[in-house]
Amino acid sequence: MFSQTVEYALRAVVYLASQAPEARTTGQIHRATKVEQTYLSKVLQGLAKKGIVTTRRGIGGGVALAKSPEKLTILDVVNAVEPIKRIKTCPLGLSGHGVRLCPLHKRMDAALASVEAAFRDTTLAEVLAEPSASVPLCDNPQALKLRQSKVSKS
Amino acid sequence: MFSQTVEYALRAVVYLASQAPEARTTGQIHRATKVEQTYLSKVLQGLAKKGIVTTRRGIGGGVALAKSPEKLTILDVVNAVEPIKRIKTCPLGLSGHGVRLCPLHKRMDAALASVEAAFRDTTLAEVLAEPSASVPLCDNPQALKLRQSKVSKS
Repeated sequence: MFSQTVEYALRAVVYLASQAPEARTTGQIHRATKVEQTYLSKVLQGLAKKGIVTTRRGIGGGVALAKSPEKLTILDVVNAVEPIKRIKTCPLGLSGHGVRLCPLHKRMDAALASVEAAFRDTTLAEVLAEPSASVPLCDNPQALKLRQSKVSKS
Repeated sequence: MFSQTVEYALRAVVYLASQAPEARTTGQIHRATKVEQTYLSKVLQGLAKKGIVTTRRGIGGGVALAKSPEKLTILDVVNAVEPIKRIKTCPLGLSGHGVRLCPLHKRMDAALASVEAAFRDTTLAEVLAEPSASVPLCDNPQALKLRQSKVSKS
């Protein structure tokens, strides 16, 4: 139900959040997220257009999170690349229905609403701070230790 | 987040549930669901392959629901055409993660789980029986009255 684009955008943004406020090159993001470079560039362009990341060319440039990880939610990222389209009027265009959804479309919209709410409630900072044996996008146990000491100090 | 195929499959199946156990022609389903005929045929083929509908050629033939509307859930229909793919192992293939999802993928999977649960809990019979001013796929107030008297008598 989540497209590759959504998955890749979230990987890229979670990685940048873990490095914030530093900028990272596309090559670095590619290595961390395992997303193929051409696809990754397109995803990052989309995120830049919607103000989720900023890009700067040249030496010391790269891609960085546009806001702090506390101020960006999973929903912000998802909606930047592939907005969750709630069902607000009858998709069949039945004039008698209009904005009064039938039970089928009401249930479909309720499912979308629950995903939207769960994603709106979670900031990137929360994703990174959650205690877990698996560090987002990272296979190095050392990073876990470093991260845990960073979290416990903050 | 729901594809056209999912939307169209649900429309077709909800219509057939409202007509069950009768079979309906592709033309009749097309008129009720407003789905373009070639696309509709493909969707119906997919549903037939997965045992959601049965098709019979010739006079008196057509497409019918394979089970009673009480025994088919929204999830059965969605999974027949475009299965909800839960995230069971790390999508990055990180060996250190394996089946221990990181907080990002745990949250994405939780969202999928909530949709799956909502759809598993709803049979087609429930969609049709729900009191609503908008009858699924139907713009005819007369149909509403007929249906309401049918529901109140049963």
